[in-house]
Amino acid sequence: MLTSTVRAVQWVNEGPKGGSCRLLDQKRLPSEENFHDYADYRLVSKAIADLTVRGAPAIGVAAAYAVVLAAQEACTLPENGRRAFFDDALHTIAVSRPTAVNLGWAVARMGGLATGRIDADLTARLLREALVIQEEDIAFNNRMARLGSDLLREPVAAMTYCNTGDLATGGVGTAFGVLRQGYVDGKVTHVYTCETRPVLQGLRLTAWELAKNKIPFTAICDNMAASVMRARKVGAVFVGADRIAANGDAANKVGTYALAVAAQFHRIPFYVVAPSSSFDLTLASGEGIPIEQRASEEIVGVLGSNRPPYAMSTFNPSFDVTPHELITAIICEKGVIVAPDTKKVEMVFR
Amino acid sequence: MLTSTVRAVQWVNEGPKGGSCRLLDQKRLPSEENFHDYADYRLVSKAIADLTVRGAPAIGVAAAYAVVLAAQEACTLPENGRRAFFDDALHTIAVSRPTAVNLGWAVARMGGLATGRIDADLTARLLREALVIQEEDIAFNNRMARLGSDLLREPVAAMTYCNTGDLATGGVGTAFGVLRQGYVDGKVTHVYTCETRPVLQGLRLTAWELAKNKIPFTAICDNMAASVMRARKVGAVFVGADRIAANGDAANKVGTYALAVAAQFHRIPFYVVAPSSSFDLTLASGEGIPIEQRASEEIVGVLGSNRPPYAMSTFNPSFDVTPHELITAIICEKGVIVAPDTKKVEMVFR
Repeated sequence: MLTSTVRAVQWVNEGPKGGSCRLLDQKRLPSEENFHDYADYRLVSKAIADLTVRGAPAIGVAAAYAVVLAAQEACTLPENGRRAFFDDALHTIAVSRPTAVNLGWAVARMGGLATGRIDADLTARLLREALVIQEEDIAFNNRMARLGSDLLREPVAAMTYCNTGDLATGGVGTAFGVLRQGYVDGKVTHVYTCETRPVLQGLRLTAWELAKNKIPFTAICDNMAASVMRARKVGAVFVGADRIAANGDAANKVGTYALAVAAQFHRIPFYVVAPSSSFDLTLASGEGIPIEQRASEEIVGVLGSNRPPYAMSTFNPSFDVTPHELITAIICEKGVIVAPDTKKVEMVFR
Repeated sequence: MLTSTVRAVQWVNEGPKGGSCRLLDQKRLPSEENFHDYADYRLVSKAIADLTVRGAPAIGVAAAYAVVLAAQEACTLPENGRRAFFDDALHTIAVSRPTAVNLGWAVARMGGLATGRIDADLTARLLREALVIQEEDIAFNNRMARLGSDLLREPVAAMTYCNTGDLATGGVGTAFGVLRQGYVDGKVTHVYTCETRPVLQGLRLTAWELAKNKIPFTAICDNMAASVMRARKVGAVFVGADRIAANGDAANKVGTYALAVAAQFHRIPFYVVAPSSSFDLTLASGEGIPIEQRASEEIVGVLGSNRPPYAMSTFNPSFDVTPHELITAIICEKGVIVAPDTKKVEMVFR
């Protein structure tokens, strides 16, 4: 079984006054490894919004801890003010970012426990649940890593996108867990990591995790992926997901769709690796998935001091949707859904 | 007829001691518009290598002027040393960059004139030829712009890649000329410019040219192009080329191939716009086109001060080859080659 190289999200400092949520500041990676301890749910919500913590499963775990922080703070208030404060906090946490369904899923799961009096007992129950959410994520990561590696019949160079490892999850990762397990198993010989513009999660974070795990890799610009597929015979693509609809359509970091199109063109298997918490079965298809639009600055900022003297109109969706027809299989802790569609997803979730 | 908004390459300061090649420093765009005058062919060769001037046709024109500079300098030497000096200079210029065939084409065309004595007369003849090369490029640009715009039956939003305008050519551009003419004709309503990692010619240079020409545009990361095609109904893609083989396979800035794959998937016409000087009929297919590999720093440099503490292995081909099967038509000054293949290219060049 794989173990985490680094914990991006964890609960720390538990004591009489409660504990804190510790986050690794992913914005400063790879040059600096800074951890911050948050005792205020608002700051965790902000950390989710500004990408200090990112990756759908990691956001879910961080959100669960944020709910515990909100309960801790509620307990310091007069009893008649606690419920309104707590419900407001839950809402704030849930809307930190729109696309990853794990966020709403974690808040709903935690909120569902908090039906009665908001007190120290409830806070303790919420903390246990948040720890269970992280423990489950760790176990699911390992299960998916095993399932994914076992899908590979022979050693291949694999391609991945964005970041889906320790940093993006509670445990060893989704797609990245498969790459790690595959490397251990001798099934993955090399990894191509796409840089993932504009926030460069692939160049900054996945490259960092690959280096930490001593897995041989090559970083490329996103626009080179199709050429690499054509020339270098990449044998499989593994990506994560932020929200998967009932028919298997999967939202993931923008650029995933382009990669899926290229993989189909080159007849390279394209795998989505995501836990059941990333599924949103209330949505029939990917069309209903809300896509976060982010600031123009994320794109234009690459120019640094070399700014244009005119306003730049940009389009900066943080995610795109890969239709299920382009997905070879979804690897979930519940099983591998080959050639996913509504019926097959339903069978796994029955 | 369109006229240049800015001259990226031109011959200036012609006087008794000769003239200079003036280049707009494209590395500093869009924040600064600096022109430098070069009287030394070695510096022009260096400017080609370091991307001060880039774009296949512009490189061809700059190379022609560099040959004139070499002849000027040869004339200052004793007669028995001129030929060796000049031939050596021609070689230096020709190998400044490997992929754009216009470079070798221009040097060969100029060198072909320089068979006799190297003196002031020859230098004058070479200058006339270099000016003709630029004049031809200007005329060919306008011809292609007209042919390209006429291909559009109805108004569309168009997508383009890298930079192919005033900056990349002797005149108004190849693909960019079509966009400008199309905009004037009411055929192109909006332009999506892909940023074109790693050197960002799309975000820096094409956006700058679009702004100068007041054409409405949106800048996107390269990895968003496929999503834009899917969602926004881009009606056509226009790109340039650095070298086109006899069968129509076209080398262009890396990422062009990914765009062609995505265009085919979405059934969007994909046009390559290039003058006859970009054809290399000695190569049967794109497999023979040499692809320049550039420094890792171009990719990793985007991290600025946020460098990783480990060595980053990258793959940085500056170009890729789009097979002719993915090209709807090649727009050349000699005519439009629809669904290009060896036979159709041959017919146009007969």
